[in-house]
Amino acid sequence: MKSFLDIEKNSDFPLENIPFGVYLNNGKPDICTAIGEFIINLNILENSGYFDTCSFAGAKPFSEPVLNKFMSLGKNARIEARQKIQELFSEESPLAGNNKILDEILYPLSKAEMLMPVAIGDYTDFYSSREHATNVGIMFRGKENALMPNWLHLPVAYHGRASSVVISGTKVRRPSGQIKNDDKPFPEFSKTKQLDFELEMGFFIGTGNELGNPVKTDDALEHIFGMVLVNDWSARDIQKWEYVPLGPFLSKNFATTISPWIITLEALEPFKVEGPKQDPEPMEYLKTKGNPTYDINLEVYIKSEKMQEPFLIAKSNFKYLYWNIAQQLAHHTITGCNTRTGDMMASGTISGPEKINRGSMLELTWRGTEPIKLPDGTERKFFNDGDEVIIKGFCEKEGLRIGFGEAKGLILP
Amino acid sequence: MKSFLDIEKNSDFPLENIPFGVYLNNGKPDICTAIGEFIINLNILENSGYFDTCSFAGAKPFSEPVLNKFMSLGKNARIEARQKIQELFSEESPLAGNNKILDEILYPLSKAEMLMPVAIGDYTDFYSSREHATNVGIMFRGKENALMPNWLHLPVAYHGRASSVVISGTKVRRPSGQIKNDDKPFPEFSKTKQLDFELEMGFFIGTGNELGNPVKTDDALEHIFGMVLVNDWSARDIQKWEYVPLGPFLSKNFATTISPWIITLEALEPFKVEGPKQDPEPMEYLKTKGNPTYDINLEVYIKSEKMQEPFLIAKSNFKYLYWNIAQQLAHHTITGCNTRTGDMMASGTISGPEKINRGSMLELTWRGTEPIKLPDGTERKFFNDGDEVIIKGFCEKEGLRIGFGEAKGLILP
Repeated sequence: MKSFLDIEKNSDFPLENIPFGVYLNNGKPDICTAIGEFIINLNILENSGYFDTCSFAGAKPFSEPVLNKFMSLGKNARIEARQKIQELFSEESPLAGNNKILDEILYPLSKAEMLMPVAIGDYTDFYSSREHATNVGIMFRGKENALMPNWLHLPVAYHGRASSVVISGTKVRRPSGQIKNDDKPFPEFSKTKQLDFELEMGFFIGTGNELGNPVKTDDALEHIFGMVLVNDWSARDIQKWEYVPLGPFLSKNFATTISPWIITLEALEPFKVEGPKQDPEPMEYLKTKGNPTYDINLEVYIKSEKMQEPFLIAKSNFKYLYWNIAQQLAHHTITGCNTRTGDMMASGTISGPEKINRGSMLELTWRGTEPIKLPDGTERKFFNDGDEVIIKGFCEKEGLRIGFGEAKGLILP
Repeated sequence: MKSFLDIEKNSDFPLENIPFGVYLNNGKPDICTAIGEFIINLNILENSGYFDTCSFAGAKPFSEPVLNKFMSLGKNARIEARQKIQELFSEESPLAGNNKILDEILYPLSKAEMLMPVAIGDYTDFYSSREHATNVGIMFRGKENALMPNWLHLPVAYHGRASSVVISGTKVRRPSGQIKNDDKPFPEFSKTKQLDFELEMGFFIGTGNELGNPVKTDDALEHIFGMVLVNDWSARDIQKWEYVPLGPFLSKNFATTISPWIITLEALEPFKVEGPKQDPEPMEYLKTKGNPTYDINLEVYIKSEKMQEPFLIAKSNFKYLYWNIAQQLAHHTITGCNTRTGDMMASGTISGPEKINRGSMLELTWRGTEPIKLPDGTERKFFNDGDEVIIKGFCEKEGLRIGFGEAKGLILP
């Protein structure tokens, strides 16, 4: 696909991508997409009549402050909108020479302030990387009992905090809480000394399911709108003291950063791949066919106050996940649990087979025993104030690159 | 306080109560209160100008389908609205003889279909009953390790599922899921055989706090709108297999029933009492003064298909809870976690010192070893299909009774 807009070869946003987001336009949120180095204002395009021939035109989904209405229209509306946008920005489009409308709708991506694209209903966090669960298991319970008995039978998950999911670029304040050192009889109150990231991805529910009606794996992708990068910030010392028996709570709910662009399942379609072999065979309600997951390269960078350039500390891939998104959604709803437009479900930390694939400082530094050396001469077991953590993601195949942009956050004291 | 409306002596809704709810009025949700045996339509009252002298009149909070807008106006607006309603329905009110407006705004409580009063943002479930945590601990870990080391230091909690919080009267479908019996090597897929209730109460956030700004215990009640009864339905066999290490997930997210009327903190004020002695002394951020909790009687009834009358199986009291609501909110936000209007925070199962005070079948039947005999000649370890479970709550003191109504649910196969 060729556009009349200049698109660099390594751009995250070729005409094949058409991500959806929301940016601040003259003080108000406007729904947009990105092509090359440009934001395209979909609200203005819609109000100028460019979607009038679409079947969803009456709903005016792009005149909203968040994507929820558009997401609720389902897969066909999404496909139609993508095709219309691709057509409008193709080489042959009559828009090509129309500077009047282009002046109105184009905005430089580099200058845009992106906003939360979705009003999130419920946020669920899975724990679907076998390598991550194994690494953590070895550290806390030893090699023999690394993986819990349930882990290979079901995609373990827990409910997270939706209110504190924030958009990339939001600064993250180092949280305080109760911390108990092994050599002390009582907990102490302190800022966390073990602030960590978790390299994750998340998917958004487009069309939900009613209470009492589980989603089948075969139908699951019909309910999913698209995906984002997720940094599930974690305070390990707070987590260690609080999490038995009901799971992580305050150690996670101070902030969860997402990337601003939702990449649709249609854009990811060319990158579908097989997942890891599942043994034991999943129960009937968890069986999936074909290529049930996606080949998405993931990178994590750190930039300290003294560093000019971000430094790569981890590389992983979404395809390493043991449980795929269809299985996650089928499991989540098997009891009849309902989902709603805008619900977010994250993958859990995405680690992989190699050391560089570890998706948290906990694993990368093996509980702080193997600190990471940074180019500024300092070391990290966990993060310092002033560190910026940047997650990037992209798919690449036969000259096509579909990018996610980034999910970044700077740590404040 | 005396009203021109007939109010029976043991009514849950005297003029001192003024609960807030939402009912179905000619096919649409209308905000209402209850006095004696009547629903009062606050939407019509507002549109007829009866709140025009209130400081919040411009916001028209009662013309909404849920209470969130009214809740977001804060404590003073709530106090003002209560006083205005009490004045309008007092013996001396000019409304007394005005049959035209009374015909429009009154509706028999017994015929009303109540709806979800609040659009819930996040739902958090605490675990604040020492007796409950101890009972469960003894059953699963033995007497020596009954209470986890963190339990007396912080109000343990986990995030719950907001989408499946349902209004009293909603039927509850018995969920299916993975269940592993101790004598089998692998889990099996089945309907739960251990469907249980949890006797809880919940409070709603009226005015939230910003990310990064913890709520102090001294300010906590300013943020809280009021309380409801909660049945945190639980599938014990599903829970047992799934909950390590990240906590309960599917075993809870198929349904959580709440009572339809939110009882304001102002109505509960006369019933403030001391809580249990806290030892060790709570950390500074968890200290509360005065009478930090409430004396609220709680009752649980079961009615099988063959029974005519509900049968009492448990009695407890909100005051037994070790951690109070100010401590819960202060703890929840100590990391900087934000809260929003409509967030719900439940207490966890409210058990007490006596056997009859146990707030779940798990405890009442001691894991099924001591079944409950019902008047219809049958026994229960957990619930059968066709059983209806009813939670009631009320405060009583010196002739004043403030009731919560009930939270009930009938179990479907």
